Amino acid sequence: MIDDNQPRIKVDACFSPHLYPIYADDESIVVIIDILRATSAICTAFEHGAEKIIPVATVEEAREWKRKGFLAGAERDAIQVEGFDFGNSPFSYMGDTVKGKTIAITTTNGTQAIEAAKDAYKVVIGSFLNIDALVDWLIREQRNVLLLCSGWKNKFNLEDAIFAGAVTEALTTKNDQIKLGDACLALKYLYQLAKQDPYKFMSQASHKERLAKLNLKKDIKYCLTPNLTTVIPILKDGALVKMEPVEILMNS
Amino acid sequence: MIDDNQPRIKVDACFSPHLYPIYADDESIVVIIDILRATSAICTAFEHGAEKIIPVATVEEAREWKRKGFLAGAERDAIQVEGFDFGNSPFSYMGDTVKGKTIAITTTNGTQAIEAAKDAYKVVIGSFLNIDALVDWLIREQRNVLLLCSGWKNKFNLEDAIFAGAVTEALTTKNDQIKLGDACLALKYLYQLAKQDPYKFMSQASHKERLAKLNLKKDIKYCLTPNLTTVIPILKDGALVKMEPVEILMNS
Repeated sequence: MIDDNQPRIKVDACFSPHLYPIYADDESIVVIIDILRATSAICTAFEHGAEKIIPVATVEEAREWKRKGFLAGAERDAIQVEGFDFGNSPFSYMGDTVKGKTIAITTTNGTQAIEAAKDAYKVVIGSFLNIDALVDWLIREQRNVLLLCSGWKNKFNLEDAIFAGAVTEALTTKNDQIKLGDACLALKYLYQLAKQDPYKFMSQASHKERLAKLNLKKDIKYCLTPNLTTVIPILKDGALVKMEPVEILMNS
Repeated sequence: MIDDNQPRIKVDACFSPHLYPIYADDESIVVIIDILRATSAICTAFEHGAEKIIPVATVEEAREWKRKGFLAGAERDAIQVEGFDFGNSPFSYMGDTVKGKTIAITTTNGTQAIEAAKDAYKVVIGSFLNIDALVDWLIREQRNVLLLCSGWKNKFNLEDAIFAGAVTEALTTKNDQIKLGDACLALKYLYQLAKQDPYKFMSQASHKERLAKLNLKKDIKYCLTPNLTTVIPILKDGALVKMEPVEILMNS
């Protein structure tokens, strides 16, 4: 039941970084989504103890960080750029390689979305890997939420949409005062069709075909696995850091 | 079964005129979609004998056409602008008022989408009112298709998405060589959920709320009615005209 005395929280989704200026406001929390694979890789890096991740828009900027002695990752068209420590496979952001490290990273889609939204009220990183922690935090924040899908070169893609649908479903289950934008209404239905077997559902997607050619089945299955971590990466002063437990629980 | 000897036709959807440059190419047919209510009104006007419709981007341009003695329609925020002959209600584009006439028209969303896509290979107007004629013609053309949803002020909206899903479903039923972009894959599922009762499905949409306030239930029901006409409006030299029967049947 709608309680008119309580201000309703709005949740909407944007399907392309190029569309972000149309959806942007000064008050919403922006969740960056690039399931295959940037935001999954970023969550993995923090789970494995990375200190800081610096998202940059261009390969040249990433190279500059590498010259300065930092670790650096660069991916274009799903392939690791030569001369870098990482591409965007989550499996490369594990173990001692990343522990305690600061890593600069640029990807085809995900870091472009972060760049687009960098001036938002709060920018956090979402993936299936941290979905429950993310949703619980969003519920406690009691703020409008914009789910920013990175897509593929500014076009709509299925995996980011399915994840945004999963977040929408979880948020509306936990708070019946939420008002959904049309995009989230559509995504909630889409997720309901996909959730029995997201991997199978995804097997129709255009990007999936591209990735299958690159033999990335293992990556895709990993990126669709829920709740491997409780970290919530958040953008602070241009760098992603792990949200502190005190900040996670602030409104509880 | 996929026949690799036949070139596969690609069908994709774009959810906002602002995103059109990302999807644009020189070869695709672009279908302009603004179900509530511009493209429904345009189809209605041609069914009722309108000669030509000149889509313009601004109210000022529409006013200029009116000064020159033409009929002119202008809608902003779902309301008819003062001093014009029409808003964008399909019911006003009926009967002797429009028969044989040239009408300039500007709307919040639909005419902006036409403006964005005006240099495409072919630009046609789609609505539930002409869906079967449109789909049959698209099948005969054997060209890539881009379904351009006008949305609401460049944001995704549910009614245009449902219609794009309906076209996608009809196209794939009639031609199993079609390759769908991710957006069309998602929309096809969405339409399958909506098609039993599009009006009820739509009752959740944000724009529907806006229109309900304006007492437009009758308009909405009309705009969701399939096949009230077989006209296909097409853009030629900056004006929409009714496609000639010979052109409709060219590839049959």
